[in-house]
Amino acid sequence: MTPGRQGAIGVFDSGIGGLTVYKALRAVLPPDERIVYLGDTARVPYGSKSEATVTHYALEGARFFAARGVKALVVACNTMSALALLPLRRAMAGPVIGVIEPGAEAVCRVTRSGIVGVIGTSATIRSGAYPRAILDRLPGARVVARACPLFVPLAEEGWTENDVARAAAAAYLHGLRDEGLDTLVLGCTHYPLLKRVIGETIGPQVRLVDSAEATADATRELLQGQGLLRGAGGEGAAPAGGAASTASDVVDAAGVEDHFYVTDPEELFHEVGSRFLGRPMGRLEQVDLTE
Amino acid sequence: MTPGRQGAIGVFDSGIGGLTVYKALRAVLPPDERIVYLGDTARVPYGSKSEATVTHYALEGARFFAARGVKALVVACNTMSALALLPLRRAMAGPVIGVIEPGAEAVCRVTRSGIVGVIGTSATIRSGAYPRAILDRLPGARVVARACPLFVPLAEEGWTENDVARAAAAAYLHGLRDEGLDTLVLGCTHYPLLKRVIGETIGPQVRLVDSAEATADATRELLQGQGLLRGAGGEGAAPAGGAASTASDVVDAAGVEDHFYVTDPEELFHEVGSRFLGRPMGRLEQVDLTE
Repeated sequence: MTPGRQGAIGVFDSGIGGLTVYKALRAVLPPDERIVYLGDTARVPYGSKSEATVTHYALEGARFFAARGVKALVVACNTMSALALLPLRRAMAGPVIGVIEPGAEAVCRVTRSGIVGVIGTSATIRSGAYPRAILDRLPGARVVARACPLFVPLAEEGWTENDVARAAAAAYLHGLRDEGLDTLVLGCTHYPLLKRVIGETIGPQVRLVDSAEATADATRELLQGQGLLRGAGGEGAAPAGGAASTASDVVDAAGVEDHFYVTDPEELFHEVGSRFLGRPMGRLEQVDLTE
Repeated sequence: MTPGRQGAIGVFDSGIGGLTVYKALRAVLPPDERIVYLGDTARVPYGSKSEATVTHYALEGARFFAARGVKALVVACNTMSALALLPLRRAMAGPVIGVIEPGAEAVCRVTRSGIVGVIGTSATIRSGAYPRAILDRLPGARVVARACPLFVPLAEEGWTENDVARAAAAAYLHGLRDEGLDTLVLGCTHYPLLKRVIGETIGPQVRLVDSAEATADATRELLQGQGLLRGAGGEGAAPAGGAASTASDVVDAAGVEDHFYVTDPEELFHEVGSRFLGRPMGRLEQVDLTE
């Protein structure tokens, strides 16, 4: 049984990076939608781990969200979307949206030459999920993929525009630049923080695609299509307490706030999280997924 | 009940880095000593996580080693040594040796000026374990500590002598160099791989101390002192099958090899592990610590 329109929307990430997807969702969802965010900060990163381990952790997260009756689950982590989307779909009652399909859609709309670059974690690149999703939509495309493992720790260190970031971008992207691509997918939620350095290194002729916004739009459309969007009977984003909202929606909107859960009690999440959100984070709760 | 002389020696790390300690142990232990190595590669790194999470993972590892009847446990991970040594000592029947005490001993022998630098993961530095251990032995010392989170992913990427490594070393170590230190502790098992770049950045007047060798020596002494060392009745390192060995030692020496366990089935461990060991790794088995 699905929780119906009143349920919250789950956002699942291996750590902090998924806050870019959370932020994009908040920008397009009705304000009375509730979001439950889970970052598996005790076991982050997933991007250097195997499919078996990532799937194991993903299913533990699914149990957490199922217990909280979410009506839909957004998998913000590229690695989890690449490796564990099918098992997650089997485990959850409601729809499960990954970042890779919406990202691939966006790429295919943007590219002119059909030569597309993808950068991501080792696990995402090894999975081949982006090339597959892009070629499904644009069979003549040429997709050049490259793992950039250092970009995640650089973003978490806050080293997004210094000499180290520039040297790392040069080392990873030099070969890519010569491939003649016109579009580059930032296939990891951390990478938008390095957007400026990545853009300067790859050159102005290459459009950068961040899947966070595409995923937020896809989530809103899917909820609306399935009659699961709050406000206006799923007809659109209702302003909080607006004329289109039902009475219970208004009460909810006045009383609720989004919930953020992490698996490690580390205070750092607050600091780095605020950097991702561009504003101070709300309250955090710790949870043990292995129980 | 302790397993006695015939038990294996456990080496516990959050991942691959502890192989430097394994290698140092193999160099000083009798060849018929068996080593069981465990790297928690599914949850690596520990260095960015909280004390509660690191202790929780450490105790799961302790259960693994207790079930395998190890006679002594060497905690190769600096973060775990800094945060979870006491709980590990309570959980294990035999002696538990961390890397921080032997590292601090070595520093105090080496320094002339008493001004000492320590670099390590965020968790190790935040714990204050190195300054405490050094000041216990050399109360007049001045200890300057600095977290260098990027060094671990740099070492795992194999970027130990390129522009990125040099830029990261410059960013982390510049301030340290002006403190007038004469000794710098590499307080993380990954850092010896960046020894050359660290040395060039900090300058030739600063001695670098790697705790792996100090820990191996301390382990050998402790086993010998407690009558737990194989060969020659704990009197010294017996050559394999040498005159000082008992018959059962010889049979063991002929039949045993060291065991390496990881929590993630990722093949990468083999490649990076071989880089740490300087030779191809032996066989690996996967294990689930949460069961």
